Amino acid sequence: MSQRLKLIVAYDGGPYSGWQSQASGNAIQDHLERAFQRIAGERVRVHGAGRTDSGVHALAQCAHVDLTKSNFAPEKWLSALNGILRPTIRVLRCNFVSEKFHARFSAKGKVYRYRIWSAPVLVPLEVGRAWHVIAPLDVDLMRRAAKLFIGEHDFASFSANRGAALGDTKRTLRTVTVRQRGAIVTLEFDGEGFLYKMARLMTGSIVQCGVGKISCDEIAETLFRKSRGDGPRLVAPAAGLFLVRVRY
Amino acid sequence: MSQRLKLIVAYDGGPYSGWQSQASGNAIQDHLERAFQRIAGERVRVHGAGRTDSGVHALAQCAHVDLTKSNFAPEKWLSALNGILRPTIRVLRCNFVSEKFHARFSAKGKVYRYRIWSAPVLVPLEVGRAWHVIAPLDVDLMRRAAKLFIGEHDFASFSANRGAALGDTKRTLRTVTVRQRGAIVTLEFDGEGFLYKMARLMTGSIVQCGVGKISCDEIAETLFRKSRGDGPRLVAPAAGLFLVRVRY
Repeated sequence: MSQRLKLIVAYDGGPYSGWQSQASGNAIQDHLERAFQRIAGERVRVHGAGRTDSGVHALAQCAHVDLTKSNFAPEKWLSALNGILRPTIRVLRCNFVSEKFHARFSAKGKVYRYRIWSAPVLVPLEVGRAWHVIAPLDVDLMRRAAKLFIGEHDFASFSANRGAALGDTKRTLRTVTVRQRGAIVTLEFDGEGFLYKMARLMTGSIVQCGVGKISCDEIAETLFRKSRGDGPRLVAPAAGLFLVRVRY
Repeated sequence: MSQRLKLIVAYDGGPYSGWQSQASGNAIQDHLERAFQRIAGERVRVHGAGRTDSGVHALAQCAHVDLTKSNFAPEKWLSALNGILRPTIRVLRCNFVSEKFHARFSAKGKVYRYRIWSAPVLVPLEVGRAWHVIAPLDVDLMRRAAKLFIGEHDFASFSANRGAALGDTKRTLRTVTVRQRGAIVTLEFDGEGFLYKMARLMTGSIVQCGVGKISCDEIAETLFRKSRGDGPRLVAPAAGLFLVRVRY
């Protein structure tokens, strides 16, 4: 008999090679699995709601593990895990859930935030946490570009191939918002699902539109094309992207 | 004939051994002096408005240098320096000033900010940028404690000896404010001058009051004692402290 533990995990993506387990052993998943092994003496698999790339941050990634040997209370798991993990990975909350819950398959949606530093000089405390865009941004134009992505679309032209066939590339975005506060311009994507690099490719296009390099019509055409084929596309750097939360 | 260049410098204090030049060569001053030497081929001395300890951050430290050999425009200095410095040290602005201006001696005051993370778990993106205080804080009590420091006092009991005689330990604080926003409690000290470790010692006392370990009366007594003598004092960690600006 096993118990399923649900975890809400935050991390600074900078020092790690992304969420998914790597040969290097330096993925967030690797660090979590090693922490479980040290505490419980059992080799467990940590299932995340989704992968985040190297350098991408999470304010509240969700994951689950099935535990068979240990019968600690959730508070005990929280303090034991945080006692072993480096401070740049933190378990924020955890609780036991039914085996019907699956971090990936039960997810109904995700919210991603992208932070842009729009000023001539990038301040030191934003290094690794924002994309430095020196050219002035037309934020109203960025809002118009962002609206093009709202709703159900075939996002094939805003995805990267992982080397496998893509399968179904239809996704639905509930909202895409653009806010400005001082030098920080924040994009927020709330969607039922995201393809590989989709948030960073949409951000790249919205920023290219904001600096006047492409038009809203060109973004609409690229979206309509539904293929990853032609022309260079701008992938916004990983460091500006934050997984804000997973909706269930 | 030389020209005096005034610099506004921001830095993430984490990777450096403080502002003041060290044998290690890893102080902010060392990095700036090496950058000037590389650009201008002349050995200059960078004069800061004041020292910050290892781990303390600056949003806008002020400094000046006297340049004799080169006649670049300020914008050229800005881009050349930022082209050489690591991204965690940035020159935000610079301009030529009269020789009557001195970064340290012309300073009329400074603003320091101290950030506290008041929640059971410290989120990864606050590591190195806030003091994690787990015990619940009574913010109203902290406000009462903070008020005790406003005005002119002999702050000897809120300073650390650098190994030399202290000299005049009278200082004037214009305001000390305490704000709370979610898990972040921010103290801001606006004063005409600060003794060594004074901001971190005041923060330590205000926090000890906020967690119920000492009373406001005890802080008042310590201040009145005017000596560094008796009893352990709590120095708040460097990582939560930010030099916000220097007033001239």
